[in-house]
Amino acid sequence: MTTAGTIPIAGRVADLRPTAVNSILAEVRATPGPLVSLMRGEPDLPTPPHIVEAAAKALAAGRTMYPDNRGEPKLRAAIAEKLRRDNGLDYDPATEILVTTGGTFGIYAALAAMLNPGDAVLVPDPVYDAYLSPIRLTGAIPVPVPAEIVDGRFVLTVAALEAAWTPRCKALLLNTPWNPTGTVFTRDELAAIVAFCEQRDLSIVSDEIYEAIVYEGNEHISPASLYKHRTVLVNALSKTYAMTGWRVGYVAAPPAFVRAMLLILQQSSRGPATFVQDAAAVAVVGPQDSVAAMRAEYTRRRSQVLAALPHVLPPQGGFFAMLDLRELRVPSDIIRRRLLAEFGVVVVHGAAYGPAGEGTLRVSFASGGDVLEKGLAKLREALRVIG
Amino acid sequence: MTTAGTIPIAGRVADLRPTAVNSILAEVRATPGPLVSLMRGEPDLPTPPHIVEAAAKALAAGRTMYPDNRGEPKLRAAIAEKLRRDNGLDYDPATEILVTTGGTFGIYAALAAMLNPGDAVLVPDPVYDAYLSPIRLTGAIPVPVPAEIVDGRFVLTVAALEAAWTPRCKALLLNTPWNPTGTVFTRDELAAIVAFCEQRDLSIVSDEIYEAIVYEGNEHISPASLYKHRTVLVNALSKTYAMTGWRVGYVAAPPAFVRAMLLILQQSSRGPATFVQDAAAVAVVGPQDSVAAMRAEYTRRRSQVLAALPHVLPPQGGFFAMLDLRELRVPSDIIRRRLLAEFGVVVVHGAAYGPAGEGTLRVSFASGGDVLEKGLAKLREALRVIG
Repeated sequence: MTTAGTIPIAGRVADLRPTAVNSILAEVRATPGPLVSLMRGEPDLPTPPHIVEAAAKALAAGRTMYPDNRGEPKLRAAIAEKLRRDNGLDYDPATEILVTTGGTFGIYAALAAMLNPGDAVLVPDPVYDAYLSPIRLTGAIPVPVPAEIVDGRFVLTVAALEAAWTPRCKALLLNTPWNPTGTVFTRDELAAIVAFCEQRDLSIVSDEIYEAIVYEGNEHISPASLYKHRTVLVNALSKTYAMTGWRVGYVAAPPAFVRAMLLILQQSSRGPATFVQDAAAVAVVGPQDSVAAMRAEYTRRRSQVLAALPHVLPPQGGFFAMLDLRELRVPSDIIRRRLLAEFGVVVVHGAAYGPAGEGTLRVSFASGGDVLEKGLAKLREALRVIG
Repeated sequence: MTTAGTIPIAGRVADLRPTAVNSILAEVRATPGPLVSLMRGEPDLPTPPHIVEAAAKALAAGRTMYPDNRGEPKLRAAIAEKLRRDNGLDYDPATEILVTTGGTFGIYAALAAMLNPGDAVLVPDPVYDAYLSPIRLTGAIPVPVPAEIVDGRFVLTVAALEAAWTPRCKALLLNTPWNPTGTVFTRDELAAIVAFCEQRDLSIVSDEIYEAIVYEGNEHISPASLYKHRTVLVNALSKTYAMTGWRVGYVAAPPAFVRAMLLILQQSSRGPATFVQDAAAVAVVGPQDSVAAMRAEYTRRRSQVLAALPHVLPPQGGFFAMLDLRELRVPSDIIRRRLLAEFGVVVVHGAAYGPAGEGTLRVSFASGGDVLEKGLAKLREALRVIG
């Protein structure tokens, strides 16, 4: 008799980590006093009213039955239209698009459908740390590709990709616009990366969730426009339409791979709520004024960050700015802890995203208004004292 | 150069299967003529208006930001209250409850957090076939425990459990009320099963999604009320509140295991939409009149099935009735195909749920009205001809 036994926990769980943001949040809760957070990647803007109304209308119309696990046909058609309109890409909504429970699920489905235990995935360093656990969940390992700061932006060179590559590598995980660095890959850079992938027989998992947030003539280009047959395009409505809490995203890929991802999805979430999918269809093909307004707002906030702080690497996309404090020669986690404890301002240390992020801090301007103003004032004061 | 290459597909995908219902749906689409379906497990009732209104209200209040990945505190508190009210169970909402993206995700999270490759899980046979792929997704294998039909109901004996058990078994997956059989386990039966699990050091994953749909004095008892420290209680709002398309469920388990499941959940869905969680809280602790009304409606439909058809094993719970046609000595899949092709009525063959289901058919009364009436008339006529 083992009445004192407990439920066993699978070995894979030990490989999973909360994200840096989640860990820092725990520290923040234990820190007394008023704090200002420039940490999170959540827009402070409300979901545009016409999208909210579409959801309410779908609810009132009784759109509460099981969704099509591939995604409701209307939403898949809308996504295909959006991919043509915004990305010049032609995907068949019947076979090449899968609606997912947020962008996180798209990444998970792509990795779970592709990777065997013992495989490896090239990931840029610094990398959005939430990619690492889903890679490990498949039994594969992430292989960091150190980026360099060149002319005020992080870049990923083919030489670095070559140096990191091993025969176990099956894919490159790419994120453009790139969180946390703010880099938007140019067409030439992507062409070089794709040539490397072709040579090394690698697929690309491309997270494009920040695509709508680009600055100063930078243009978002999907790797799928250069390498469609080997790219899994992952996107979500969270950032573009301030819909983080709705949990709706999508993947576009060749039919056989979409079928594989669908089988993965059917074992767990089975897709977003049906009426949420109706609203999502309105979001992607309805009026896009809110997207332009959002971009204008983030452009203002970005200028505010650049005006307030020294040492900023001007972001080309996304709503994070990296502060390059390498000349201080202090570990970024120590700087971050001082900022929290002595100045009451919360940011993420670059080293949380990998060794190549060491010496930098990630400052979010996903929140604006008073939060951003106060946070920037505190940061400027802190940098004056520390630097 | 391998420009003609394709995205590789992981080995695990080959172990995943669409459910019987999904496979039959494909056949149905290829069958000409008007068909009546008594196949699916989806209530035809609308979500009660007060729940729909709660969602609309939450949407209007801007509840569209990221949810707490454990589940919104208000919903976890509501679930704890429901578990006390309906099940006499005491769970701490802060540490022992996780909100999931539907019941399917609860099963997946429980299995992924518990099972290592090479482990085994005892599953009743016949079993809801959608459990098998998530078990295989962990690298574990399902071990069927053949049930017997005794006194007009399927039962799971300790002798059968003992005979099926191997040292690799880590858990028993239990479903009460039991889809497809309609059995509701009695307290004595559960006590015997729990004693077996204690002796063999097994945990229980308990799917209780049909708990509110029980008939004629049968009572739903959660295995957690007898074996709380080793039970993962999985439930969802889909059937009780006609909320299949909302994708919201929950698990209750000891804190360490909830933490493990949370880490699994954070890699993929990150939980239901925030405003959906607000509505779910209203569903579980708001007025429960709709649940009684639903039970009364299914009770009427069940009587209709019993009156219309011969050979029915009267279901104690759920909205499926099994027809016991073993005396025909014809494989159930062949009977099912004849019913589809010659009589235009769609059911699921018992063998789809395992060898112990052979010779039976599963008839759904999740849909009522004309569909049920016409379907039962066709079935009765078919049984007269075939039998």
